[in-house]
Amino acid sequence: MKLDSQDLADLAVGAAFLGTGGGGDPYIGRQMVQICLDEGLSVELVDPDDLDDAALVIPTAMMGAPTVLVEKLPSGQEAIHSLQRLERRLGRKATHTMPIEIGGINSTIPLLVGARLGLPVVDADGMGRAFPELQMETFGVYGVSGSPMVVSNEWGDCAVIEATDNKMMEWLSRGVAIRMGGAAYIAEYAMSGAEVKRVAVPRTLTLAIQVGRVLREAKARHINPFEALLTFLPTTLYSYATVIYTGKIADMQRETRNGFSIGRVRIAGFGQYEGVMEIEIQNENLIARVNGVVKAIVPDLICIMDSETAEPITTEVLRYGQRVTVISVSVPELMRTPEALAVFGPACFGLPEPYTRIEDLSA
Amino acid sequence: MKLDSQDLADLAVGAAFLGTGGGGDPYIGRQMVQICLDEGLSVELVDPDDLDDAALVIPTAMMGAPTVLVEKLPSGQEAIHSLQRLERRLGRKATHTMPIEIGGINSTIPLLVGARLGLPVVDADGMGRAFPELQMETFGVYGVSGSPMVVSNEWGDCAVIEATDNKMMEWLSRGVAIRMGGAAYIAEYAMSGAEVKRVAVPRTLTLAIQVGRVLREAKARHINPFEALLTFLPTTLYSYATVIYTGKIADMQRETRNGFSIGRVRIAGFGQYEGVMEIEIQNENLIARVNGVVKAIVPDLICIMDSETAEPITTEVLRYGQRVTVISVSVPELMRTPEALAVFGPACFGLPEPYTRIEDLSA
Repeated sequence: MKLDSQDLADLAVGAAFLGTGGGGDPYIGRQMVQICLDEGLSVELVDPDDLDDAALVIPTAMMGAPTVLVEKLPSGQEAIHSLQRLERRLGRKATHTMPIEIGGINSTIPLLVGARLGLPVVDADGMGRAFPELQMETFGVYGVSGSPMVVSNEWGDCAVIEATDNKMMEWLSRGVAIRMGGAAYIAEYAMSGAEVKRVAVPRTLTLAIQVGRVLREAKARHINPFEALLTFLPTTLYSYATVIYTGKIADMQRETRNGFSIGRVRIAGFGQYEGVMEIEIQNENLIARVNGVVKAIVPDLICIMDSETAEPITTEVLRYGQRVTVISVSVPELMRTPEALAVFGPACFGLPEPYTRIEDLSA
Repeated sequence: MKLDSQDLADLAVGAAFLGTGGGGDPYIGRQMVQICLDEGLSVELVDPDDLDDAALVIPTAMMGAPTVLVEKLPSGQEAIHSLQRLERRLGRKATHTMPIEIGGINSTIPLLVGARLGLPVVDADGMGRAFPELQMETFGVYGVSGSPMVVSNEWGDCAVIEATDNKMMEWLSRGVAIRMGGAAYIAEYAMSGAEVKRVAVPRTLTLAIQVGRVLREAKARHINPFEALLTFLPTTLYSYATVIYTGKIADMQRETRNGFSIGRVRIAGFGQYEGVMEIEIQNENLIARVNGVVKAIVPDLICIMDSETAEPITTEVLRYGQRVTVISVSVPELMRTPEALAVFGPACFGLPEPYTRIEDLSA
């Protein structure tokens, strides 16, 4: 499947939704890929089931604080440089690239790399959403090593990280990304086609495009876009979706700390939603509580959307006074196994509450 | 020349002197090399003039805060791992290793690597003393690239840094070293034999051995070791040496910040030395002032020695009440050129005072 400009616009919206607050500004990534399309380059998606088992897939991404990204724009060459450096390290050429997360800019960086290098992009990712840290990928959960990985900046500096485990890879590469100014571009978790089929969350690029399309078409037809979305999602691997709150943003704390966007947003409820919802953030929305009672918790999605336009609002553009609708969505089963929760469940973020499925929380 | 245990003991003393407060605890490095000698391995020094122009010399070292080193002992494999990883990156085997600085542990790490890998060690270094940062090497001053370089820890994690300039290499690798716990082991500034002859400070390993021997033999013969040292140094490239102060340590501030040992020591003068000498430290002793008047300034050496034993005292073991003699020594001319001072002169450490030769300051 070749992507056109409309797909790309829909993808940016859908990836901002699936990014659950994080993944970086989708606008910037969309513009970089649009330039490729305008130049006549093409972006080709490949279904994971159609991959040759011997394919060499090298995922590419931005790493850093979304709050930094919007002030430190990429040149567009960084992730390409990282992929090529990793190819040299491996002594093999990549046959495909792939997203590591289906959130914000990280859904589009691999499209940019694919368009520029003529590599097809695998329609899958390693988070099924966005997460703040690089060990938090289904790739690693199910046994693929993130190392060797490469971090590059816009000046051509790079570091090849060879860590003994994926958490150490995250720790060391984050140190480099911080010193590159808080946002850098990576290639990591190089794997075979056979491994992709086993460890990746499938078809999340086309899912993001569909989410964007559903919202766009509903608005064009003057149908309630939230209802359209809640009708569509149960037809996918993200089978449960529900509104958990509506209200007005009453308070927003946000800072860039240790290379992450850390914060807390408070939403004063409207109508049936009494009290105040408080959402904790580490790049992504991690937990939503009302008066201390958990309403949704990581890894299930917590998406803050503009109540008027049904646009997803990413962490770095949340602000006082926005009227918002908060939707929570179940993640695919391979992200809810004990192995997966050991890597990106609530305890991995220092949250005291156990993981409880959104289906059970909203029952 | 093959080193014996006595050479090694003398080297540890001499390198602590030339390290001008920094370079890390010489005791630890000496013990690691002594174990090699006890196992029957040999350490062979090679004069730079005897190097084949086509030799591949890969310098090895510790990087980090000396204060951390004494609490986080190396396994001894780290620098070997870094050298071997750099060999793989370069696609060539090293023919020699070499110190990057002739201070403390960094005078002995290459001896350890050489003994274990059977590589001769070039009798030269890249600082002619110790400096806190990796761009502060004559190697870089005279045009050799520090990158690609490798940083390794005791667990086998490593990062290959490929920076566009040596200051960025320092910045990124320091971030990695900090995240490795504040002390890590490196291989960098790979160069040819022809380059060594052009850019290295020659014969500093044998100089350090001679300094240690002069002090030891003077003490054995009940000659004043300070006088013996001040008589010996003018026969070397370090041609001017003088006592600038004697007194008692009255105050010591020291902290580990940004991966460095940062501090300030105040010495209350004895006899003819009135007032208080204040010495500023970033791993190494950078400037000595009495009542605001500069008595010695980087890159000339400022060596704090125990007045009773004539042992050099490194930064991390300075303490209140020690009776000390402060000696300043001129550095070789290749470290005093405008190009050299642009990289490791006073302004590079944020000092407002211009560089003034110790010969002129003490005239």
